[in-house]
Amino acid sequence: MAEANNTQSSEEKHKQHLAQVIDLLDKQRLEESLLQQQSMPRHELVETLLHKQHQVALKQKLDQLHSADIAYILESLPLEQRLLVWNLVKSELDGQILLDVSDAVRETLISDMDRQELLSATGQLDTDEIADLAPVLPDEVMHELLESLNQQNRARLESVLGHEEDTVASLMDFGMVTIREDIALGVVLRYLRRRGELPDHTDKLFVVDKQNQLRGVLPLQTLLVTGPDTTVATVMSRDPICFLLDGDADDAARAFERYDLISAPVVDRDNRLQGRLGVDAIVDYIRDKSEEDMLSQAGLLDDEDLFSSVWKSAKNRWFWLAVNLITAFLSTRVIGLFEHTIGQIVALASLMPIVAGIGGNTGTQTSTLIVRSLALELITPSNTGRLVLKELSIGLLNGAVWGSVIGLCVWALYHDERLAWVMMAAMMVNLLLAALVGLAVPLIRHKLDLDPAMGTSVLLTAITDGMGFFVFLGLATVFLL
Amino acid sequence: MAEANNTQSSEEKHKQHLAQVIDLLDKQRLEESLLQQQSMPRHELVETLLHKQHQVALKQKLDQLHSADIAYILESLPLEQRLLVWNLVKSELDGQILLDVSDAVRETLISDMDRQELLSATGQLDTDEIADLAPVLPDEVMHELLESLNQQNRARLESVLGHEEDTVASLMDFGMVTIREDIALGVVLRYLRRRGELPDHTDKLFVVDKQNQLRGVLPLQTLLVTGPDTTVATVMSRDPICFLLDGDADDAARAFERYDLISAPVVDRDNRLQGRLGVDAIVDYIRDKSEEDMLSQAGLLDDEDLFSSVWKSAKNRWFWLAVNLITAFLSTRVIGLFEHTIGQIVALASLMPIVAGIGGNTGTQTSTLIVRSLALELITPSNTGRLVLKELSIGLLNGAVWGSVIGLCVWALYHDERLAWVMMAAMMVNLLLAALVGLAVPLIRHKLDLDPAMGTSVLLTAITDGMGFFVFLGLATVFLL
Repeated sequence: MAEANNTQSSEEKHKQHLAQVIDLLDKQRLEESLLQQQSMPRHELVETLLHKQHQVALKQKLDQLHSADIAYILESLPLEQRLLVWNLVKSELDGQILLDVSDAVRETLISDMDRQELLSATGQLDTDEIADLAPVLPDEVMHELLESLNQQNRARLESVLGHEEDTVASLMDFGMVTIREDIALGVVLRYLRRRGELPDHTDKLFVVDKQNQLRGVLPLQTLLVTGPDTTVATVMSRDPICFLLDGDADDAARAFERYDLISAPVVDRDNRLQGRLGVDAIVDYIRDKSEEDMLSQAGLLDDEDLFSSVWKSAKNRWFWLAVNLITAFLSTRVIGLFEHTIGQIVALASLMPIVAGIGGNTGTQTSTLIVRSLALELITPSNTGRLVLKELSIGLLNGAVWGSVIGLCVWALYHDERLAWVMMAAMMVNLLLAALVGLAVPLIRHKLDLDPAMGTSVLLTAITDGMGFFVFLGLATVFLL
Repeated sequence: MAEANNTQSSEEKHKQHLAQVIDLLDKQRLEESLLQQQSMPRHELVETLLHKQHQVALKQKLDQLHSADIAYILESLPLEQRLLVWNLVKSELDGQILLDVSDAVRETLISDMDRQELLSATGQLDTDEIADLAPVLPDEVMHELLESLNQQNRARLESVLGHEEDTVASLMDFGMVTIREDIALGVVLRYLRRRGELPDHTDKLFVVDKQNQLRGVLPLQTLLVTGPDTTVATVMSRDPICFLLDGDADDAARAFERYDLISAPVVDRDNRLQGRLGVDAIVDYIRDKSEEDMLSQAGLLDDEDLFSSVWKSAKNRWFWLAVNLITAFLSTRVIGLFEHTIGQIVALASLMPIVAGIGGNTGTQTSTLIVRSLALELITPSNTGRLVLKELSIGLLNGAVWGSVIGLCVWALYHDERLAWVMMAAMMVNLLLAALVGLAVPLIRHKLDLDPAMGTSVLLTAITDGMGFFVFLGLATVFLL
């Protein structure tokens, strides 16, 4: 058995945990329903079950698990069972689990806890972790928590909360070990041994002077491979990569990728050490951002708890549905202008969505590349012109190729030569216009300091749809009537 | 000046580098064109320029930069200037820069290098890094490279290349430091000092036995804070998180996030140590995956070099344009069935795209949540039923709400009560069907072991479009004619 376990990867174990918990919950539910058939009153039932074997087994199982595994299990369970499991979890892990679960699930857990439970759960956390939970904690809990902190930690918490989301400050932690530059490495080693445990993700010590100004960093590796008599100043790295408190979190994430960092000092404008940025926060940030993008692209405002109420989920989807409905309504008003033409040539009705749709697709291809290049800062004033020329050329080429293909299809279908020519011309014009819109929308939003991604696709589709209908029906009116 | 530099974050410096290089290139180009006006022959011109001051300044600037900064500059430059800069880069950095640039840009750089340059650039790289470049290296270079490796490294390279993409093996490196469990920490420290530099991202040493089987890991932190007489076996962690060679890279990335790892051992099915997984590879993997998703969602096959040729870029966009064109053609054939109805009531032509469009939006919302929950493994057989019921309820609720809104709009616009009722009914039916399709497509693809994301949105839009047209025009034919 021990042999078999050894060859199992962590991931296989991780997935098994959920299956085991669900199994225990199912057994318990089965018993519950059996007892219910014997029509015992509900509260007696719970009392009886509380002492049941499966409950004990469940608790034992949970006690062995890492907080992140419990968080995963809680996210996979419907509300009722989720709270059952939540109440069985060791209270020492409560704070860490609250940090690990998704925002939507966190709310359900917190709403099940009273003031005292929340205080004891958050009391075990670091200052930067409390800051992460701050937005969802009740005001009175937050107030009491602030009072319980010492002056340094309160100042730190207020500094983090005072900075906007998506700044370096919102991602930093305070797990930094600082040393002076004039001491010997042997002294540093003795200091670390006396100190005992180091903060997670410590791969370097920060060297500061008396004014707390950052002088350099000393990698733990250097400390390990250098003799004890060397002084810190001799081996420290003097121009370390560091970040400003109010720097952009996106930029910091790119720098972590680019320079393969594990931790880096955070300083204020006077070069005073304020905190530390760790790769764990960066990984979470990258993942969160990519999921946010995915959700907003699909027309969802927020992440959803799989088991939240129908009403809550529906509201999460209304904003973008409403926006889409309004833009669809407006862009199809263009068709209304040509009702007379459609009345004469009904075939136009089944061809016009093709022209509109392909415009949306081309525009999205262009705008996605532009949004991405803007995010990577690859677009400079000196290369914008070249880029615009290139995208327009592609639009023209695609228009010629696919316009011809579609023109031939129309001819094969309706045996109407003039209709085929109109279709082809409309495709060409629309693909060119779509490339133009795909370029213009993100570039203009960027110039106006708006997020180039958000809303781009809705705006773009509305424009290309309306344009597609107008170009096609317009050409048809001029040449076919 | 030194003061001012100190308060600059790494990111500000990083962006300045590009501006400075572009500035130098511009000055050079200006001179070039001035000289050209004096109509000197081209080859003389180059000779003259080669000794020009700006060229020297450019080289000096490049020599100071980190390989990742040079990679960024190369990506932002048009092909001609890119190759100019590339030829000025110190050859020691060539290999690292090839690793740092995007796939599309890498091809342009490699096609500019001869066999000898490629061999010397790749000769400086680690085995796992050579494996990353292998797909784009010419066969003859790869062959010579394999011959130049020692037996261990050749075996390692072949092992990495033998595993599929998106497995743990494709991400691992070989920067592992191994020790035995029966020695004292003091001995380990002396061994490390003798060894000198440690591999990047070393946060733990791997403890193996004589058969190279993994026995545990020793965090560097433990080594630092524990006395030199303790043996490795006493303080090592015996049940470390480790990964299987052929494990799924996605799972590994989730585990790194979940357990906040920096490095972890990779073993084969017999628990023999095969390599190491580092957080740098994981960060790159997460970013690559999220960009891949973004590109394929926008209908692009591959990442594009901003400055690749029109022809190459156009081909990159054709596959999905063709797929969209075909599905649009098929779904609009449904309209063809109802041409008679549209001929009678032309208003239907401008209303039908609204019904189809909103179905696509609702379906995408549902399918995105399902795809995401499948990726996070939150969907289990025991909660699927509940999930389906919830999504259908939301579809019904949204249909009632937005159907009524749209029905009222139609009534206000056309003063036709029966048309308004048909519109409302069509919206309700279509939103319900769209939720069903949004559930079914990813769940069925997942059951069939297909990637639930890829292609889902194209398939989904085609179905909801066709359905939307059919339901609306069908109801209109039955009730309005």
